[in-house]
Amino acid sequence: MSASRYAYLGPEGTFTEAALRSMPEAATRELVPMVSVPVALDAVRSGAAAAALVPIENSVEGGVTATLDELATGEPLMIYREVLLSISFALLVRPGTALADIKTVTGHPVAQPQVRNWLAANLPDAVWESAASNADGARLVQEGRYDAAFAGEFAAATYGLEPLVTDIHDAQNAMTRFVLAGRPARPAARTGADKTSVVIWLGDDHPGALLELLQEFSARGVNMMRIESRPTGEGIGRYCFSVDCEGHITDRRVGSALMGLKRICPKVRFLGSYPQAGVVPEEMAPLRHGTSDEAFTEAAEWLARCQDGRA
Amino acid sequence: MSASRYAYLGPEGTFTEAALRSMPEAATRELVPMVSVPVALDAVRSGAAAAALVPIENSVEGGVTATLDELATGEPLMIYREVLLSISFALLVRPGTALADIKTVTGHPVAQPQVRNWLAANLPDAVWESAASNADGARLVQEGRYDAAFAGEFAAATYGLEPLVTDIHDAQNAMTRFVLAGRPARPAARTGADKTSVVIWLGDDHPGALLELLQEFSARGVNMMRIESRPTGEGIGRYCFSVDCEGHITDRRVGSALMGLKRICPKVRFLGSYPQAGVVPEEMAPLRHGTSDEAFTEAAEWLARCQDGRA
Amino acid sequence: MSASRYAYLGPEGTFTEAALRSMPEAATRELVPMVSVPVALDAVRSGAAAAALVPIENSVEGGVTATLDELATGEPLMIYREVLLSISFALLVRPGTALADIKTVTGHPVAQPQVRNWLAANLPDAVWESAASNADGARLVQEGRYDAAFAGEFAAATYGLEPLVTDIHDAQNAMTRFVLAGRPARPAARTGADKTSVVIWLGDDHPGALLELLQEFSARGVNMMRIESRPTGEGIGRYCFSVDCEGHITDRRVGSALMGLKRICPKVRFLGSYPQAGVVPEEMAPLRHGTSDEAFTEAAEWLARCQDGRA
Amino acid sequence: MSASRYAYLGPEGTFTEAALRSMPEAATRELVPMVSVPVALDAVRSGAAAAALVPIENSVEGGVTATLDELATGEPLMIYREVLLSISFALLVRPGTALADIKTVTGHPVAQPQVRNWLAANLPDAVWESAASNADGARLVQEGRYDAAFAGEFAAATYGLEPLVTDIHDAQNAMTRFVLAGRPARPAARTGADKTSVVIWLGDDHPGALLELLQEFSARGVNMMRIESRPTGEGIGRYCFSVDCEGHITDRRVGSALMGLKRICPKVRFLGSYPQAGVVPEEMAPLRHGTSDEAFTEAAEWLARCQDGRA
Repeated sequence: MSASRYAYLGPEGTFTEAALRSMPEAATRELVPMVSVPVALDAVRSGAAAAALVPIENSVEGGVTATLDELATGEPLMIYREVLLSISFALLVRPGTALADIKTVTGHPVAQPQVRNWLAANLPDAVWESAASNADGARLVQEGRYDAAFAGEFAAATYGLEPLVTDIHDAQNAMTRFVLAGRPARPAARTGADKTSVVIWLGDDHPGALLELLQEFSARGVNMMRIESRPTGEGIGRYCFSVDCEGHITDRRVGSALMGLKRICPKVRFLGSYPQAGVVPEEMAPLRHGTSDEAFTEAAEWLARCQDGRA
Repeated sequence: MSASRYAYLGPEGTFTEAALRSMPEAATRELVPMVSVPVALDAVRSGAAAAALVPIENSVEGGVTATLDELATGEPLMIYREVLLSISFALLVRPGTALADIKTVTGHPVAQPQVRNWLAANLPDAVWESAASNADGARLVQEGRYDAAFAGEFAAATYGLEPLVTDIHDAQNAMTRFVLAGRPARPAARTGADKTSVVIWLGDDHPGALLELLQEFSARGVNMMRIESRPTGEGIGRYCFSVDCEGHITDRRVGSALMGLKRICPKVRFLGSYPQAGVVPEEMAPLRHGTSDEAFTEAAEWLARCQDGRA
Repeated sequence: MSASRYAYLGPEGTFTEAALRSMPEAATRELVPMVSVPVALDAVRSGAAAAALVPIENSVEGGVTATLDELATGEPLMIYREVLLSISFALLVRPGTALADIKTVTGHPVAQPQVRNWLAANLPDAVWESAASNADGARLVQEGRYDAAFAGEFAAATYGLEPLVTDIHDAQNAMTRFVLAGRPARPAARTGADKTSVVIWLGDDHPGALLELLQEFSARGVNMMRIESRPTGEGIGRYCFSVDCEGHITDRRVGSALMGLKRICPKVRFLGSYPQAGVVPEEMAPLRHGTSDEAFTEAAEWLARCQDGRA
Repeated sequence: MSASRYAYLGPEGTFTEAALRSMPEAATRELVPMVSVPVALDAVRSGAAAAALVPIENSVEGGVTATLDELATGEPLMIYREVLLSISFALLVRPGTALADIKTVTGHPVAQPQVRNWLAANLPDAVWESAASNADGARLVQEGRYDAAFAGEFAAATYGLEPLVTDIHDAQNAMTRFVLAGRPARPAARTGADKTSVVIWLGDDHPGALLELLQEFSARGVNMMRIESRPTGEGIGRYCFSVDCEGHITDRRVGSALMGLKRICPKVRFLGSYPQAGVVPEEMAPLRHGTSDEAFTEAAEWLARCQDGRA
């Protein structure tokens, strides 16, 4: 039964699986690896899975375009939650392999820039070939095709390998952000440290359109946390923007900004409001003057009094 | 009984009286001249008059500061209507006076720059002395203190004078705008060619405060028609702004802009929504995309659907 | 010889004269009272005076429109200096007059709102009539036409009167700002606490024109200190703006903002850069990041390197 | 000798090679395929090649992140030219293969979304596996590992294959934009239909930073043609922006915008000014009022006159 099933970007042993297993509810679900982000999300659309965990952003490589594009188009989906995972690699080898034995290494193309410096310093002569995923790389080492694979340390057991070196990462604090996407539903309750995601299409090609879009947020003191341009597929120079902002759709300032966008842009897709991973309400910056729910309510009441001749 | 009484900036024979008599309802009211704008408006506040007509803006001299300041402070008043009057002067003299006899001329200080060129060309040697009002100037001519007065042609009869020259005005299209102010009430119904007046105080002295104020209007495509800075009386460099914008407070874009101002500014005083004098709805420029009442309503409905998980 | 002559808004005994006498250089000049602001400024234009001191702004009454309009139009003039004067009134009477004897009072119309509360509390039954200037009011008391005049205490001696009450002012900190205007010249050297004055005409009637004007300042972190709208005389709804901003025309950020205005506005009139009265450089707020002369110079050098292929 | 050598993203038979061969100067150069974008660009940095052609943007898949990131970091490079190429695929097979024989297909991962619909309609049961490049896919078909490869029709001859189906593309007008990158040099002469590329880092995390960045362009009427956010590698939520704008660095409005960016942003990297591919000057939109070189020059001259007291 699908309600008990969570899809994820497989195969087994990926960072996505590790992120999914960090969620408490994963313990009671059937976790099903999928071959690609589109396949994982289509499983949700078809009802074969209740939700799917997919990577959306990497602090080194940037947005995961397959995820951004799948969420922006096709039958609507919604982000229920986000999960952050620190990314560091282990060099996985068949038992008995020493560093000096390694002539060929593999891993996902995204891993390569994150271990490039380590490779140059420690295995300068090793030849890199890309694999379809980090876990696939581990499998190819298991099969003897390569000498070593960069993958999460947790993948070693799955493929009968052992971690020769661990905690490899060129960039400090490399993180990947994953989202749990499901079918449209009432957003999770406001926690006070929330995030709202939307995709916004710009109407025509007029130069100030992006500026106007940003002003709808800034006019209400709504902080933008992420903005990524994506081609609409209608030709060079036509973009939509994937945006995360602080706050919950039931916060008046956020709702007001979204309505402003809806009015001036030809298309806005609401992708969900959900708790910011790793942030508690106490850590949030104070709201800008005049942007609290109370300020919105008082202004609405004042307007009503003006309209009634009671101001 | 006060409901039948309209105050105006007197004395008899002023342009204000002429403007008041151009209003159809004036025919059924008792019209009472007052010695100053504050006195006229205080008559309304005290209930001695139902409304008062006072000048608010002159195309040559600018805002009438007494009116702007009286409307901005004290017990609230509201603008019910506006009246536009073309201003041209007559040179009023005692019967029998010829142009060559005129050694001294008088008139309100506001009249002086509007007839300066005419005087230089036609009466270069005449000495100007200011009077408290154009009508007062006429009275002083009647009393023999000056040889001629600039005033409205309609003032001649009141003071037993005759217009020696008429239609004198240095600036083309000189106009004065008058407002009929009353106690706060439900604004007149929307006509489609309306104007809304507010006074806005800027909170602190931060450099971008005026910019933010203007953006509340521009973000909703609300055209500003007039903006005048006035000192708040709290010291050099502290201002409030008297603003007229296009549209009616019941237009969603106007209401939304006013609520935005109310949230970010420490004080906003609503002065009324009323028909634009001399403009019919057919002449209004089309609204900017996304600022119609329908666009606001659709955006609000979309937001509700998003919040309910039905988007 | 005109270089030794300073005109001022007379008659003798006005606050303007007091302000002029507060300037050290006044001691070596012939000070000539003029009947009006236009006459004082025309004396400068004609060469009859080297400069003229005129009031430009009052913290209670706002901009002095005659001065604003005279500086905005006609043959160009420039502001050399500004002077600030605290305004408080004395009640001047003929020797021997007691408070209980006063039935009529006079003064400049501008004085009236500044003493209104005092009058209501102390002379509730006295009748007010306006005079052409505070000093004229004193003269009329001397002539016996009124019982008392509000004027500067320094005017008593000139008219043989005595100050019955002093230090009368409804508003705390009432100040008038005066400017010393002369013919166009190289601005005074930068002091680090300077002010720059301009008059800016908006091109067409497009709604965002004022916003764009303000953005030219804000984009360079140039604080606006005063903005006043004035009618252009071309009809209701056509304005120019008289603006003071912080900084000197030789500051790169100010020059850059002025050039931006010059490009987008049909007309900009530079009125001068001069020291801010009563402010020392140490009290100035720090510049916004990226707006120092050094930042401008570095950016220009970087651009040159980019253009040369050396970046 | 390196001056005669152009590197490109290989292997032979890629769209990049086709784009390179469309450039007239390619006829006189040695064209050297490289295994990756970083390797191609490093060949330029090291002097092994005079320039390198690499893809930078695809109308379906968006920015080519390897190219964007390589240009943003490391030893500076500059864009000399851009080339646009329409992208359509051929299905390449070993001679004699019929559509019904095809069980497995390959191609670059970027090709997959561009042929997905075609595959679903024509080869619904074929299994897709990704190859390192379209040309690599062709090679794997040649070796018998897959039955068919999506690649440019021009790749058929290189690998002894034949195009079974041509002109396959799900999206209309799919285009890829390539840039010829070299070592920093004086930009190509202005043509009147130019493009300028920069990478801009936002200083701190303050909410309005992106807005301010865009205003530097919009304030000078400089149209932005492309904006892509890229992670800086310093953690989730830290971005730089890759921007193309209309105009040449020697256009005053562009230079002025770049200097504005340089002042307010901690880092700006100039990537070059070069002719817009496929656009002639006659097709350019007219400049916004006040943004021509003449307007800038006049404003600078006016400023100098003001500073000299000659305005």
